[in-house]
Amino acid sequence: MSQQALWSGRFAGGMAESTLDFTTSLETDSALAFFDVMGSLAHVRMLKKCQIIPEDDADRIIEGLKTIVAEMENGEFKLDFSLEDIHTNVEFRLTELIGPAGGKLHTGRSRNDQVATDYRMYLRESVLEIVSSIDALIDVMVKIAQDHGNTILPGFTHMQHAQPVTVAQHYLAYAFKLSRDADRFMDAYNRMNKCPLGAAALAGTTYPIDRKMTAKALGFNGPTENSLDSVSDRDFVSEIAFAASQTQIHLSGLSEELIYWSSQEFGFVEMDDKYTTGSSIMPQKKNPDITELIRGRTGSVIGTLMNMLVMQKGLPLSYNRDLQEDKKALMDSLDCLLQCVNIMCPVLSTIRFNTDRMRAAVENGFINATDLADYLVVKGIPFREAHGIVGAAVRYCIDTDKKLEDLSLEEFGKFSDCIGEDVYNCITVDMCVERRNSLGGTSSASTDEQILTVIEQKMVRYENVRQENQLLEACWNELLE
Amino acid sequence: MSQQALWSGRFAGGMAESTLDFTTSLETDSALAFFDVMGSLAHVRMLKKCQIIPEDDADRIIEGLKTIVAEMENGEFKLDFSLEDIHTNVEFRLTELIGPAGGKLHTGRSRNDQVATDYRMYLRESVLEIVSSIDALIDVMVKIAQDHGNTILPGFTHMQHAQPVTVAQHYLAYAFKLSRDADRFMDAYNRMNKCPLGAAALAGTTYPIDRKMTAKALGFNGPTENSLDSVSDRDFVSEIAFAASQTQIHLSGLSEELIYWSSQEFGFVEMDDKYTTGSSIMPQKKNPDITELIRGRTGSVIGTLMNMLVMQKGLPLSYNRDLQEDKKALMDSLDCLLQCVNIMCPVLSTIRFNTDRMRAAVENGFINATDLADYLVVKGIPFREAHGIVGAAVRYCIDTDKKLEDLSLEEFGKFSDCIGEDVYNCITVDMCVERRNSLGGTSSASTDEQILTVIEQKMVRYENVRQENQLLEACWNELLE
Amino acid sequence: MSQQALWSGRFAGGMAESTLDFTTSLETDSALAFFDVMGSLAHVRMLKKCQIIPEDDADRIIEGLKTIVAEMENGEFKLDFSLEDIHTNVEFRLTELIGPAGGKLHTGRSRNDQVATDYRMYLRESVLEIVSSIDALIDVMVKIAQDHGNTILPGFTHMQHAQPVTVAQHYLAYAFKLSRDADRFMDAYNRMNKCPLGAAALAGTTYPIDRKMTAKALGFNGPTENSLDSVSDRDFVSEIAFAASQTQIHLSGLSEELIYWSSQEFGFVEMDDKYTTGSSIMPQKKNPDITELIRGRTGSVIGTLMNMLVMQKGLPLSYNRDLQEDKKALMDSLDCLLQCVNIMCPVLSTIRFNTDRMRAAVENGFINATDLADYLVVKGIPFREAHGIVGAAVRYCIDTDKKLEDLSLEEFGKFSDCIGEDVYNCITVDMCVERRNSLGGTSSASTDEQILTVIEQKMVRYENVRQENQLLEACWNELLE
Amino acid sequence: MSQQALWSGRFAGGMAESTLDFTTSLETDSALAFFDVMGSLAHVRMLKKCQIIPEDDADRIIEGLKTIVAEMENGEFKLDFSLEDIHTNVEFRLTELIGPAGGKLHTGRSRNDQVATDYRMYLRESVLEIVSSIDALIDVMVKIAQDHGNTILPGFTHMQHAQPVTVAQHYLAYAFKLSRDADRFMDAYNRMNKCPLGAAALAGTTYPIDRKMTAKALGFNGPTENSLDSVSDRDFVSEIAFAASQTQIHLSGLSEELIYWSSQEFGFVEMDDKYTTGSSIMPQKKNPDITELIRGRTGSVIGTLMNMLVMQKGLPLSYNRDLQEDKKALMDSLDCLLQCVNIMCPVLSTIRFNTDRMRAAVENGFINATDLADYLVVKGIPFREAHGIVGAAVRYCIDTDKKLEDLSLEEFGKFSDCIGEDVYNCITVDMCVERRNSLGGTSSASTDEQILTVIEQKMVRYENVRQENQLLEACWNELLE
Repeated sequence: MSQQALWSGRFAGGMAESTLDFTTSLETDSALAFFDVMGSLAHVRMLKKCQIIPEDDADRIIEGLKTIVAEMENGEFKLDFSLEDIHTNVEFRLTELIGPAGGKLHTGRSRNDQVATDYRMYLRESVLEIVSSIDALIDVMVKIAQDHGNTILPGFTHMQHAQPVTVAQHYLAYAFKLSRDADRFMDAYNRMNKCPLGAAALAGTTYPIDRKMTAKALGFNGPTENSLDSVSDRDFVSEIAFAASQTQIHLSGLSEELIYWSSQEFGFVEMDDKYTTGSSIMPQKKNPDITELIRGRTGSVIGTLMNMLVMQKGLPLSYNRDLQEDKKALMDSLDCLLQCVNIMCPVLSTIRFNTDRMRAAVENGFINATDLADYLVVKGIPFREAHGIVGAAVRYCIDTDKKLEDLSLEEFGKFSDCIGEDVYNCITVDMCVERRNSLGGTSSASTDEQILTVIEQKMVRYENVRQENQLLEACWNELLE
Repeated sequence: MSQQALWSGRFAGGMAESTLDFTTSLETDSALAFFDVMGSLAHVRMLKKCQIIPEDDADRIIEGLKTIVAEMENGEFKLDFSLEDIHTNVEFRLTELIGPAGGKLHTGRSRNDQVATDYRMYLRESVLEIVSSIDALIDVMVKIAQDHGNTILPGFTHMQHAQPVTVAQHYLAYAFKLSRDADRFMDAYNRMNKCPLGAAALAGTTYPIDRKMTAKALGFNGPTENSLDSVSDRDFVSEIAFAASQTQIHLSGLSEELIYWSSQEFGFVEMDDKYTTGSSIMPQKKNPDITELIRGRTGSVIGTLMNMLVMQKGLPLSYNRDLQEDKKALMDSLDCLLQCVNIMCPVLSTIRFNTDRMRAAVENGFINATDLADYLVVKGIPFREAHGIVGAAVRYCIDTDKKLEDLSLEEFGKFSDCIGEDVYNCITVDMCVERRNSLGGTSSASTDEQILTVIEQKMVRYENVRQENQLLEACWNELLE
Repeated sequence: MSQQALWSGRFAGGMAESTLDFTTSLETDSALAFFDVMGSLAHVRMLKKCQIIPEDDADRIIEGLKTIVAEMENGEFKLDFSLEDIHTNVEFRLTELIGPAGGKLHTGRSRNDQVATDYRMYLRESVLEIVSSIDALIDVMVKIAQDHGNTILPGFTHMQHAQPVTVAQHYLAYAFKLSRDADRFMDAYNRMNKCPLGAAALAGTTYPIDRKMTAKALGFNGPTENSLDSVSDRDFVSEIAFAASQTQIHLSGLSEELIYWSSQEFGFVEMDDKYTTGSSIMPQKKNPDITELIRGRTGSVIGTLMNMLVMQKGLPLSYNRDLQEDKKALMDSLDCLLQCVNIMCPVLSTIRFNTDRMRAAVENGFINATDLADYLVVKGIPFREAHGIVGAAVRYCIDTDKKLEDLSLEEFGKFSDCIGEDVYNCITVDMCVERRNSLGGTSSASTDEQILTVIEQKMVRYENVRQENQLLEACWNELLE
Repeated sequence: MSQQALWSGRFAGGMAESTLDFTTSLETDSALAFFDVMGSLAHVRMLKKCQIIPEDDADRIIEGLKTIVAEMENGEFKLDFSLEDIHTNVEFRLTELIGPAGGKLHTGRSRNDQVATDYRMYLRESVLEIVSSIDALIDVMVKIAQDHGNTILPGFTHMQHAQPVTVAQHYLAYAFKLSRDADRFMDAYNRMNKCPLGAAALAGTTYPIDRKMTAKALGFNGPTENSLDSVSDRDFVSEIAFAASQTQIHLSGLSEELIYWSSQEFGFVEMDDKYTTGSSIMPQKKNPDITELIRGRTGSVIGTLMNMLVMQKGLPLSYNRDLQEDKKALMDSLDCLLQCVNIMCPVLSTIRFNTDRMRAAVENGFINATDLADYLVVKGIPFREAHGIVGAAVRYCIDTDKKLEDLSLEEFGKFSDCIGEDVYNCITVDMCVERRNSLGGTSSASTDEQILTVIEQKMVRYENVRQENQLLEACWNELLE
């Protein structure tokens, strides 16, 4: 080992190298480097303001930390893997730069509250980025909805043709799912947005620190309420892992559908060559690999949620080293989700809808049977009875290989004497769609209204994200002044 | 089969009995019976208002449904297991009571939107009950905190004595965790509180229904936005399953601690005989089974979350029968959580804290070492250096079997010449606690403040829950008028 | 409480009723009743043989236990829910029947080893039944393979037409997957088949018991090796939960496929009316609900595996009450799997393959492109180059809306001058299938060989299961003599 | 892109760079490089033997592949990230080295069977290494058992003192658990040890390949049975992930125990300084971080199992790109497990047992109560009655603050008149231990026997692993000749 740990005083023998290898978190928490220094800057400015350390020591620490930020930006900050973690790396570099006064930075805090603070800052930025990406994907879907308000395809239940719907209605369904996903991320954001710094190792500190000041300087809503809770809790980690899981679940369904829609049998869509791949052995293949991978990576994102929960199970207060395992998997998982959301945007926006195939499919499967039943209801027949009449008519059609709209009035007459000439108008596919104009329905009037609603939902988040990003940038600028 | 399914018209052969056995959901969804009828009452009142069905038919349906509610309350409503689900059972009974006009109830809706509506209503009540129970447990913890603001025990990190804390501080940590848990449930509640009724099978309906009216009558915030989304989405299911998982995780840690604290080695607490059990073979045993079971049942609650997510993975739009599996596991899981929260209340409120054992434990493990370091910092020594000095002193104590407070000034002098007579005052355990009066710290001033904060958080929820319960009761009354 | 617990001696206050409600396992472990008595019969016969209790006491206990078995068979054995578990119920009934000598039965054992023994016996029978059911499903698949050695359909990769295969080849793939699943269950069976009885509470016993004798009497391979391990381990539980999960995963894929194959777009199969259901609103629907539910229940089975693992995480030696949670979820999960496997048998054996639709589909998607490439390789062109040539030809076909087999020799000449008249024979679909006669390939010769192999694998298990069942029956008979 | 994909012929537009970034597996599957080349060597030798490609082409390919192996060993083989995967990298380098004849290597195989073969080879070596490591840890435990056959500590149930056991008995319990874990890995090994090579893309191949020959050359037990199964199945992946999970669960319990045993309250063990860490703020701390991390990493290993299962859920035949996600998580998970097992060896072998603390603990908690009951049974009192008598005596002791062995005969007389002078001998702790000499019990005779058994189990595996390693090495040597 080239360096000492921060805590070697009490120990007779040194730590085995295998212990360092096994316990180090440096590779992962180097992603926290920027936030670690920001946290230190906020902390030292507070120590200075509260006169806990001498003003000139504080100023030298501030200068040292600003130098370190510059080194990080230039790629000159070198990690020393013989030091356990990012906090130790920063502190050693600081001491190298400004001498033993650097040691005064660690007054009134501990690595336990420090890492909890750093990680929350990291996750805040991740969440804001993900929410923006989800909203961009919603935009793509809204665009599709705007373009395809009259493109009709079979609506499915149980993977059977059920009733005709429009492509607009179909993608608006996903837009609303994703909108809830993004809201879930924002809820997690707000709940997590409290600052643990100053909880110290576990019990608070004897120094007269001002936790509200550091919380504000770092853009948090305020300080966390209890020191033991502050260093022991990782529920924000699992909450974000859950928000990611549910989003990925929604993407998995969307992907599944695109995979099937790309099959020779469905042929509803064709993906752009740019977003497909081929086969090393079958020259004719054009494979929807991206959507398969999105579906497959659902395992990883859910696995991470399970990881985070299992890791926390049965832990007593307060900090236990198990908690160190809260980072790598979640960071990877959020990256994975972000990539999936981001690549879904061009995949979807370049997709070609085979409207002819969709339309042809609508003609199959007696997709207007409900409308025939509804027609009968309007004529005064209770729905249950109407359902039975139409069921019989469908069976007749299957046996005679006809469609409902092909039946003559005479044939209709065998099933009910309420059916007149006006039936044919009611059971054309276009009428089926346009007449479903209940709130949230598939008619173009309904989808136009939905488009406004989902955009409104998005705009609320957009404004929140914008304000948060502005606030954080202002914080960093002020800290680096 | 004694009865027909609702959809037999189109089918040549009947359904095999094994198919009914395999697909029936009746056993589970009979828990939805009350909500199903309420939903139907709201629906029929709307059909009447919108003149979709004749007024007198509507009135007869209303009377019939009210009769069914009465039968349910009296235990006279009998489930017919040859009918697939609760909706069919209700509809058949209705038709028995009022004749074929009963068939008009199913106008402009489908079982797909109906079950989604019923289940949201069920979950709303479950969530409100759970939130109330969590808040009751927080009350127990607050009471402990009020009683034990000066009861000192070792604070642990890595299961090692770290710094002294109070029992108040300890249980307030859990109170804040649980407070976030309850908030998470309320967030899920609000997001779920939209009414899918009228989405019909998948595409909306051609009848001029008024979805805002039914939503309002059932106490929802409003209707869901898109029909395909309404019948396909179960993200509210997984969100609640997650909220339950995180709460159970918090309980598992609390339980783990109580199990160890009850051991002969710790002896920090003694549970009341009423909440412990014995051994069939070892007459001396007194076992903390309740807390072990709470810890063990964490598996079940997390397993249910996993279940819900896996069930949803890779499903295309819109309704697929897989979604039927969204109920039993989650209902059981919420029951499990509720029982765990509820029994934790008397377990905790009857517990006896062995304050002598706790106090004695505090004397061990050099728990005041940080305070000695802080003392040195105040004398002007950088924290890092102070840490090293104290580390050496601790090692000296281990070798000579002494405590820090036992060292003479001469012995202290070997490690630093800054240590004076005033050191002894700074490193008494009581001073260690009282001087940690930073915001959220363990001093009695800090915990007093925390008590106010956590009560305030609870009161906000309490008021929300109260209002929601009132609103729902008013809805039921109006529907049954 | 109407009865005392087995361990009340040491306790001042009684147990609260809520404690009994919360901790009771009776509802679940009543499923162990038969095995519990068998275990007791084996135990008492051993106590008698080893002269640990007087012969006549032993004989009276044996008679009492036999009476209890008879009562259980007649449905006369009543559970008393004021008694914690099945063991206590049996012991109380025994004492009622034969007086205080009944108390001698619990010599040299404890509930900890008793329940571990009972549960292993229960799981043995479950596993044997599941293996038999899986093998029955393999039989159905073999029958399909025998009938459809020449039924050609598109083989898919990435849900794209890849190469033609036969229905035989397709279902043999599942047969081999299931065969491994069944083997996994048998491995778990053999590893679990050791008897913990006599490990007592945790440390063995001071009585001169003969554990080999009880193990043999209960049909185990031998006694477990270490007493602490015996009462603390539940790895057999998770191993079985895993075997179930992997089997269910295989069923989920099979189900997914049948769902899509039943769609209007694929139309490859039609399920028998007996195994489908309809819609309450759409009269034309015929839904593959069974397969959807099988796919959906995958969540439950995997959730149970998660449950079992989480429950065990971080438990120290030896018995902890958490372990009581090892039963209900797994029992339910094995029932679920069993039902899924069992209903899949008639679903598959009554399915109608639309061979025309399958054949027509094969004509699409350039499914013979690999064969054209292989043709070129035989003519001496490196595969990579051949792949490129065929890729270009495919693109030409797409642009001109032709199939490969439609190209004239002149058109082929544009891509390679090695293509002669014999090409047309090589790229017919039937030749594509029959020429893939490598081991494990899709030709009828290959599938005939595979059928023999999978039957052979099944027969080995069949014989094992038969012998085990015989052995267990012989044990029960001998114990009840 | 600097290079073309293997399949670009059919495509009009190129693949987007983001598609390559999203779909590439190179970073992960570069770990398969060695196995990929070995597979190719076996394949080309077979192609040559079967005269599928010309002898001299085959020889040049062999030489080229051997060069590539040498380059890999020297670190000269450079990965080109513009090529999708390791297979493409190897094939491009081969073609660079020997010209277009390199293109003939890919005859009669596909990347689908290739990667399945490579990965099984990778996992075989991982499993063998893990089994060896587990057996090394068992050795450490056996050593402890040999050294501590008479070191007595409290045996716990429900974390309460139950009966005295020895350290030998305690660690032998873990040795048997780990022995089953290692056996589970070997079962997975044997089931997986079949060669998919030659299944080609999905349907087998038209070339007259000899799959038995390649299987043998690569050290497999034989070829897989069905081509569709071969390219679609990943059950070996989940089986290994499960074996890892259960092992990690066992380690988590062992770790939990060591963490508590290291606490000031227990003080049963002291870990060597080399394998502990300190605190940045509390100079007195010595933390058992390694065991905390092992416990914490359980989440990751279980999470991976869930990942693998979810990834496979609902996939139809045959190869889908989702399956690419089968590697990174499992590889990381097996590395994690291996590190955990490996570091547990020195942690345990350097641990210091505080035999005084253990012994003192045994004196608490009426740990000999069962022995007093057993004493009464020998005097002819039914166990149930004896249990009640001792329970009363224990309560008397609690009230009077005495131990059972402190009671006078007169005091004993109050509870039963069967207690004589000989009682004192029966309830000494040493007698409690030594008299528990039932098979698998805690007496030194029993543990000596157990040591032999566990060593025997280990030796069977040791011999298997040795033979497999030898076989594989022989295969590699022969292929590289």
